[in-house]
Formats: sequence, structure tokens, C-alpha cells
Amino acid sequence: MRIIGIDPGYAIVGYGIIDVVNSNNILVDYGVITTSPKKSAEKRLLDLYTELMGLLNEYGPDEAAMEKLFFNTNTTTGIGVAKACGVLSLALVQKNLPIIEYTPIQVKQTVVGYGNAEKKQIQYMVPKILNMKETPKPDDAADALAVAITHSHNYKINNLKNKG
Amino acid sequence: MRIIGIDPGYAIVGYGIIDVVNSNNILVDYGVITTSPKKSAEKRLLDLYTELMGLLNEYGPDEAAMEKLFFNTNTTTGIGVAKACGVLSLALVQKNLPIIEYTPIQVKQTVVGYGNAEKKQIQYMVPKILNMKETPKPDDAADALAVAITHSHNYKINNLKNKG
Repeated sequence: MRIIGIDPGYAIVGYGIIDVVNSNNILVDYGVITTSPKKSAEKRLLDLYTELMGLLNEYGPDEAAMEKLFFNTNTTTGIGVAKACGVLSLALVQKNLPIIEYTPIQVKQTVVGYGNAEKKQIQYMVPKILNMKETPKPDDAADALAVAITHSHNYKINNLKNKG
Repeated sequence: MRIIGIDPGYAIVGYGIIDVVNSNNILVDYGVITTSPKKSAEKRLLDLYTELMGLLNEYGPDEAAMEKLFFNTNTTTGIGVAKACGVLSLALVQKNLPIIEYTPIQVKQTVVGYGNAEKKQIQYMVPKILNMKETPKPDDAADALAVAITHSHNYKINNLKNKG
């Protein structure tokens, strides 16, 4: 099964693609989609949608995992990120991909082992889990891989449960 | 010039379409797009996008006016509405429509004459401005028409300014 993990954003969206083969997580690709602050808000939404659609066409993932949005005090930024999350979700659903959301705490719990872990610890663990020689950068890409790993873990657990 | 006014939402989106002919606002159509709470969040986003795209194909507006989002205390609802607003904006930009946003205060100022007007006063004024026999319902449709009227008004003012 191929999973795309997404760390949603407006100026920058992280993505990480992994294959789950015999309970192993195998890195396929990772990176970020960025949008230019020189463009209008709606053109940036269009760019996010078009770029993600391109990735989905290229890699053909089976399922999508996304970091769940929560609102901090900066609601103006929050509105932009939520709009971006809307167009990203639209691209995924148009490709018939199930979208599973995970909170940052769930991701840290799975990847590091406890929900209050720091961001640095995610960046330390992700390359270990995926047998990468280098730390995935920028942070958004590492976070996206962490979300994909979290979904892979849940998928395996559910498979074990179903097998009884 | 044909304007589509949009009152964005997640469960219900109001739309109102008017033509501006010789400084007159002529009603074309109005109504609401609704999404079923029985469907998944992403399917509802897909429905909003598909329905709006259908309206744009049917009526071919030249410009779009949308009520600007602001956040109240219910951030969970806010995230859903912002995601919806993202996919609505995407449909508009894919049709190359300029999107102009107006705050509720700007809409009230234009349609009723003062920014602190009540919602009822908008519903009272919209049919008068558009020579309608009945009050447009539901409120979301009336609000969308009010946004379209606001944009028509701004368009005329700007035309007058440009003519000097």
C-alpha cells in the first residue's frame, strides 16, 4: 500500500510518500509545495491544488494521511491554512483517496513514543524509521513523512486486530 | 456585466446572480447549495465544488463577490467554513473569475445604508433593489444577493471615478 502524508499549509505544504511492504515502511519521495506571496490568494490555492494533483498523478497513492488542523491565536493565518486544506482535500477526494486525519499528538506518540515530544525528535526519528542517510528537510517534509508513518502504523495495527 | 455573489458556508452556501445593465441591477437567479451531514467532510467539499462549478457553467458570470470570512468563537465550525471557502474560491479561479471580498459591514453599509444594520433589514432591502415581489429565502440566498449588489455598487462607483 502506498501512503501520501501531508502537512497542510498555505505558503508551504509538506508531502511524504511511503510504501508499506511486508510491514516495512519504504521511502518513495518527499518534498514541499510552495506558493508565492506575490500571487493573489486564490491563485495560490490554485497552485496548491494543481501541484498536489500532479503528485497524485505521478505517484498514485492508495490512501492519504493529513495532519489535523487546529487553531492557534492567529486566526488570519488559520483561515488561509484552512482554505488551503480545503483545496488539498478536494484534490484527494477527486482521486477517490480516503483521507485520515491525525493530530500532532498522535503523530508524536507514534513516531517518537510520547505525545509531548519536540519537533526535533520527529526529525531525528523519521530518517531512522525510513533508513534515510540524511534528515529530511525542510521540517514540513519531515512532518509529512511522520504523518505517513503514523498512518502506516495504524494500518498495521488494524490489520492485526482484524486477523484476531 | 454579470456578477455572482456568494455567502460561503459548509452546510449551506448562498448564491445570487445579477446583471448590471445601464447602472441597473437585474435579478438573474438565486438559491443555495446544501451539503448532507451524512456524507464525509471531504465528500461535502466535493459537492460544494461540483455544484458551484455547475452554476458557473450554466450562468457564466464575469466577476465573483464573496462575503469575507471572519472567525467567531466556534473555531471548529470556522475551520469547516474556511475549507469550504477554499474549494469555492478554487472553482472561481479555475473559471478565471476575479474574486472580490466584502465584509458584512461593507455589505450592510451599501445595501441598507449603515454598517450596523440588522440581518432583517438586508432581507427587506434586497427585494426592493432588485424589484422582486417576494423576499428571497433562505437568508443565505438573500445575503448572497446583497454581496452581489455591493459589488455592483462598487463597480459603478469605480466606473464613475475612472470617467472623472
